[in-house]
Amino acid sequence: MGGNASRQPGAHRPALLFDLDGTLVDSVYQHVLAWREALEEAGVELAVWRIHRRIGMSGGLLVNALARETGWDPTADEAANLRESHARHFSGLIRQVRPLRGARELLEHLTAVGIPWAIATSGDRANAEATVRLLGMSREPLMVTRGEVPFAKPDPDLFLAAADRLEVDVEDAIVVGDSVWDMLAAQRARALGVGLLSGGYGREELETAGAFRVYSDPDDLRAHLDELGIRVAR
Amino acid sequence: MGGNASRQPGAHRPALLFDLDGTLVDSVYQHVLAWREALEEAGVELAVWRIHRRIGMSGGLLVNALARETGWDPTADEAANLRESHARHFSGLIRQVRPLRGARELLEHLTAVGIPWAIATSGDRANAEATVRLLGMSREPLMVTRGEVPFAKPDPDLFLAAADRLEVDVEDAIVVGDSVWDMLAAQRARALGVGLLSGGYGREELETAGAFRVYSDPDDLRAHLDELGIRVAR
Repeated sequence: MGGNASRQPGAHRPALLFDLDGTLVDSVYQHVLAWREALEEAGVELAVWRIHRRIGMSGGLLVNALARETGWDPTADEAANLRESHARHFSGLIRQVRPLRGARELLEHLTAVGIPWAIATSGDRANAEATVRLLGMSREPLMVTRGEVPFAKPDPDLFLAAADRLEVDVEDAIVVGDSVWDMLAAQRARALGVGLLSGGYGREELETAGAFRVYSDPDDLRAHLDELGIRVAR
Repeated sequence: MGGNASRQPGAHRPALLFDLDGTLVDSVYQHVLAWREALEEAGVELAVWRIHRRIGMSGGLLVNALARETGWDPTADEAANLRESHARHFSGLIRQVRPLRGARELLEHLTAVGIPWAIATSGDRANAEATVRLLGMSREPLMVTRGEVPFAKPDPDLFLAAADRLEVDVEDAIVVGDSVWDMLAAQRARALGVGLLSGGYGREELETAGAFRVYSDPDDLRAHLDELGIRVAR
């Protein structure tokens, strides 16, 4: 922590903290459909766009939000069943999921030029590990998942924990995510937020939520790293 | 046309022209996945969000746009096969499609209070009729589909033809749609555009594309008909 007192010129190399679903892998629509199936099983009908707008936030908050919108008031057991049912349906859909364009290349480039990076996701570890595997990285990346922090996004905990594991000041970190929950968590963590369109949110929504810049996908971000002030030795 | 010369006070009762997918029925995500399956069959990989952003435009323009984004240059036959494959995959998913909240009630309300309305969709007639059937209307609505006009959205033809069939001046019409293609077609037709969030676009995107107002879904629109200047005898 330390705050501004410890901030010194030249001592602040950036680090990148990535969301996973919709940011590195093209999995948002499968998550949406998995929630929809889980809700239908529980007898709850909800329009698909309302589910889409909640992807990336903590499962507990998501269930609360859906409860408000449907008038359904689940017990703790019902909410836990719903989350389990979503995880089960998602693992059935994971074979449809593909890496986003340029995701692996971006991460390998950062590693090659010495920029620290990590993944921070509201998802559970089993599904997150299966999802990360699709990227085909040569080394398993540093990743913080839902179970390792008190609260998932839009609380700042996941990004704070990821910065901590990288041993960087979160104020030097750039959070890259596709949802407004990532941008809100970034602001609450005092990190800079950068949005990607690849999760299906519009540019304006991400900017309104605090995105400093918005790129199409990981490939587009890699082509514009200089705009984030990232110096790369050539 | 006649234009402004024929405009007289008191002679301009509004009419409503509705898009179908994402506006009256919750079918956008199924269309997205049907295009994705069709593209994979053709050996083309494209991120799901890029497909989502093209739903509601003419199938021909969609294929052109996808071709630009993937570098794939389909022959006329390949493009026709792709459209057929999409239609086949969509009809396999239609059992998952539900009406949007309040859609039937909105349309029945308009009929009851004497506001003319019609449906104008870029989809083909077979799928559009199957989709409209989900609304459970007591009478088959007036509908203009892709095959009945020279060009689908964002050309204005579908809305112009729908106004013509209703025997209203398109300048008195209010176009209700969920996509920027509806809003662009509305502007080109000189109709007023009203956006719904139920297709997954954000409010700001629809406003930027010319939406005069944006509501959540058909139910929310019905609750705010007065904001569109629609007088209802009580």
